[in-house]
Amino acid sequence: MENIRYNKDTNELYIINQTLLPNEEKEILLDTKEAMFDAIKLLKVRGAPAIGICAGYCMAVLAKQKIANPDVCASSEITMLVDFYLRQLRADADYLNASRPTAVNLSWALRRMTNKAEALAEKALSPNNLPAVKDQSVLALIADGLAEEAVRIHNEDIEMCSRISEYGLSLLQDGFGLLTHCNAGPLATSHYGTALGPILLGTERGMTFHVFADETRPLLQGARLTSYELNKAGVDVTLICDNMANTVMKKGLVNAVLVGSDRIAANGDVANKIGTCGVAILAKHYGIPFYALAPSSTIDMNCPSGDDIIIEERNPDEIRTMFYEKPMAPADVKCFNPAFDVTDHELVTAIITEKGVIYPPYKENLAQLF
Amino acid sequence: MENIRYNKDTNELYIINQTLLPNEEKEILLDTKEAMFDAIKLLKVRGAPAIGICAGYCMAVLAKQKIANPDVCASSEITMLVDFYLRQLRADADYLNASRPTAVNLSWALRRMTNKAEALAEKALSPNNLPAVKDQSVLALIADGLAEEAVRIHNEDIEMCSRISEYGLSLLQDGFGLLTHCNAGPLATSHYGTALGPILLGTERGMTFHVFADETRPLLQGARLTSYELNKAGVDVTLICDNMANTVMKKGLVNAVLVGSDRIAANGDVANKIGTCGVAILAKHYGIPFYALAPSSTIDMNCPSGDDIIIEERNPDEIRTMFYEKPMAPADVKCFNPAFDVTDHELVTAIITEKGVIYPPYKENLAQLF
Repeated sequence: MENIRYNKDTNELYIINQTLLPNEEKEILLDTKEAMFDAIKLLKVRGAPAIGICAGYCMAVLAKQKIANPDVCASSEITMLVDFYLRQLRADADYLNASRPTAVNLSWALRRMTNKAEALAEKALSPNNLPAVKDQSVLALIADGLAEEAVRIHNEDIEMCSRISEYGLSLLQDGFGLLTHCNAGPLATSHYGTALGPILLGTERGMTFHVFADETRPLLQGARLTSYELNKAGVDVTLICDNMANTVMKKGLVNAVLVGSDRIAANGDVANKIGTCGVAILAKHYGIPFYALAPSSTIDMNCPSGDDIIIEERNPDEIRTMFYEKPMAPADVKCFNPAFDVTDHELVTAIITEKGVIYPPYKENLAQLF
Repeated sequence: MENIRYNKDTNELYIINQTLLPNEEKEILLDTKEAMFDAIKLLKVRGAPAIGICAGYCMAVLAKQKIANPDVCASSEITMLVDFYLRQLRADADYLNASRPTAVNLSWALRRMTNKAEALAEKALSPNNLPAVKDQSVLALIADGLAEEAVRIHNEDIEMCSRISEYGLSLLQDGFGLLTHCNAGPLATSHYGTALGPILLGTERGMTFHVFADETRPLLQGARLTSYELNKAGVDVTLICDNMANTVMKKGLVNAVLVGSDRIAANGDVANKIGTCGVAILAKHYGIPFYALAPSSTIDMNCPSGDDIIIEERNPDEIRTMFYEKPMAPADVKCFNPAFDVTDHELVTAIITEKGVIYPPYKENLAQLF
C-alpha cells in the first residue's frame, strides 16, 4: 500500500489516512477540494515532501473534474473559456494553500501546478497551435498536462529519495545497529524516505540492520509511524522511549545515527524534530557518527546559522494530555513545547543530500554545492 | 495533605492514592492487611522511603487491631499469648513483604518492626518485668512500642530529607534555573524529599527557582507527580518532554541539575530512573553541574561500579500503550524498556547525602564516609 496513489484513468486520488496509523491502515479517496483541504490540515497526509506530492495530484484531480462539469466552462469563446478555467484553478490552489500555511512544499507544489497550467494554456493558445485546438479540447490538454506534472513531482521525489538512500547506504555496513529519531520514511515522502531510505534500500539488498526508533514525544511519530513502517518492511526495529537512547548507545548497540531535517543553515546547523540535538550530543559522547539526510532544497543558504531559525512552539496540551484525551499532568501546570531544535554543525558528522555526502567544513562545502 | 498520615488515637492510617494523581487528590484508609498489600503492590504508595514509612505504620495498625480482636489471643498463659501474637505479626510482615519483593525499604522497615516487637516482648517478659504485666496488657505495651517505632521511622526520614535539603540548598543560588528528572519529592519520601528537597526548602525561605521537570517516560512520574508537587508548593515549574531538556539547557535556562538515586556504587556511579544518564551527558556538554541527592543508605559499598548493578527491564506495553489503554505503536513491534540507567561517576559533580556533600574522587571520599 502506497501513501499516495493516483489513478489517471479514473482520476481518483487515494491517501493512507496517517492519523489512524498504526491501529488502522486505511485508504481514503480525496475527490473534493474540501476533502483535500481537511486531509492536509488534519495531518491525514503529513511530511513536507508527501504534502507536496499530494498537492500536485489534488490539482490534477480538480483540473480534470472541471472539464466534466459543464457549468464551469460556459463560455463559447476559447480564450475566455481558458481564462475562466485558469482562474478557477488558481482559486483552488489558494484554497488548498491555506490548509497548512507553514508547509513550504505545499505552496511550492501548488505554485508549480498553476504555473504549469498557465504555460500549457499559453502554448495551446499560441497562433501556431490555435487552429488545432477546438472547443474544450484545449482544457483537456491542460488537465492532461497537469496530471503528467503531478506524476513528475512524485517521480522526482522518488528519484531524490533513491539518491539520498544510495549515498546514505554507502556510509553503513551490514549488521550495523542504527538509531533514528522522529519519522523521515516513505510515509513522509515517496519511496524509501530520507533518514529511513538507506535502511530500506539496504534491506531490499539483503543487508541486516538493527534499528532503534525513538518514540519522539510529544506526538510519537517514532512509535506510530517509524516503527510501523520499518516493522512492515521486515526491518529488525526496536521501539524505545526518547530517554533510552543513551542506554542503547552505552551498550554499544548503535553504530550510526540517521535523522532527517526540516531546514539546514548555511553553516551546517541542522533543524529537525525536538530531541534531535540531544541525540547528537549523546552520539558525540559515545563516538558514534551522526548523519542528517535531506533533499538539497532543505539547505537554506540565506540562513547563516541555526540561531536564525525560528522554532515553532506548539500547544502545551500535547504534553499535558495524550492526544487531547487523557490528562497526564496538572491542568494548570506550565509546559514548554518546542516542536524542533537545532543541532550545532560541530555535532554533525555528515549531511547527505541527493547530490552526495557533505563533510565539514560545512560553510565552505555547502556553498560549493550551490 | 500529607502522603502518609497516622492517627495514633484512632489507630487509622491514611495515604494519598498516588495512582489517581494529578487528576484526583484522594486519601484512602488502610485498615486491613489486604488493603495495605494492594496499596503497595498497585503503587498507590510509591517511592522507596515512602514505602518503608507506610510499612512501619501498617505493622503498628495491625498490632493494635489484634488486641481488639479476642479470637486472636486465646491463650491464658502469658508467654504463649505473646508468642502467638509475635508469630502473627511476623506472618503479617511476610505477607506485606511479598507486595513488592524488590523494594529494599519495604523489607527493611518490616524487619525493623518485627525485631522491635520481639525486643519489646523480651523486655516485657523478663523476670524483672513479668510481675508488673497482667494478661493482655503486655500486648498493648508491644503495640504501643510499635506505634512509637513507626513514628520514629517516619521522623528519621523527615530528619534525613531535611539534612539532604540543607546540604543541597547550599549549592544553589536564588533565581537559579533547575532541571529534575523523575520524582524524588515528598510523595516518594516524607517532608521535602531528596532531589526536590533543596527546591522546597529554598522556596519556604523565600528563594525563587525556575524548575524544569522532565515528564519521564514511560510512566510519566515527572508529569504526574513532580509537576504536581512543585505546582502545589507554589514553585515556578515548567513541564517538558524528556527530549526537550537539551533545548532549555542550550537556552541557558538551567544552572544545575538535581536528581535522586536508587543505588550509588562505591565508585560513585549513580543508578536512577531511565534517562538520568542522558541528562548528565547533556549537563556536561553545557557545563552545568549535575547533583545526585539520596540518603547515605543508597550508597552500596559492596557494589564496586555501575556495571555491577542489574537493571530491571519492564513490560514493553508501558511504551506501546498509554497506561495500558490507548495503543500508540504497532501491537507486535519490539520494545526495549529498561527502568533505570547508570550515570558514570565522571558525569556527577557531587553526591549529596544527609552526611554532607561528597565530591570526587568518589572511591576515596565515599569510603571515608563509612
